[in-house]
Amino acid sequence: MTDAPDTAPRLRLRIVFGSDAMLGPGKADLLEGIRETGSIAAAGRAMSMSYKRAWSLVEEMNAAFSEPLVTSTRGGTKGGGASLTETGEQVVAHYRRLEEIAGEAGGTEIEALRSLLRDTGN
Amino acid sequence: MTDAPDTAPRLRLRIVFGSDAMLGPGKADLLEGIRETGSIAAAGRAMSMSYKRAWSLVEEMNAAFSEPLVTSTRGGTKGGGASLTETGEQVVAHYRRLEEIAGEAGGTEIEALRSLLRDTGN
Repeated sequence: MTDAPDTAPRLRLRIVFGSDAMLGPGKADLLEGIRETGSIAAAGRAMSMSYKRAWSLVEEMNAAFSEPLVTSTRGGTKGGGASLTETGEQVVAHYRRLEEIAGEAGGTEIEALRSLLRDTGN
Repeated sequence: MTDAPDTAPRLRLRIVFGSDAMLGPGKADLLEGIRETGSIAAAGRAMSMSYKRAWSLVEEMNAAFSEPLVTSTRGGTKGGGASLTETGEQVVAHYRRLEEIAGEAGGTEIEALRSLLRDTGN
């Protein structure tokens, strides 16, 4: 699409259920971080997020979906571990696919907005 | 699409340019509010936003695009007035069209996420 990922507009999606944010870029990144690090604390740290904040987002997601997205053991000598459940994997996959589909479908409008920006080199 | 607008998931889009948010639901609503009320203050109030905050968002948008999106006169006996420029109208139109296109294209993924939620009645 473009060779300038640092300056090209990116589409960020947030799905809102009723009045509550259900899933957005932060939660999706956190889920993927948990998958990669096996730790809620480490995933949060990589996003400059406090452990409390990361844990709170996980609890929010676990409560919002019919099955938990993350399973974890707190404490212990290694500080506990965490991993994505099958539902967690599904949620991440649907969210990333949605991003991809929306970005592709909306490419013309995104480009139209980019062309109206100041200093875009076009 | 659905008869339950209060509980159906909605897609909110934010277009990010580099590290800065360029346009999201708040700015789009503010632009439309300015068009409807002819006033930055009134548009902000309708969104429970301070005048300072509304004005700051308008300045941010006017600086980000190659032409201002909002023209305004400050002060005066009627507290000044504001309206969208042609570029402002274009930006709103592209953003709303992008929302529509992305929601339609991503409908399957959004529905898949909805079906994984707790208490959705499905």
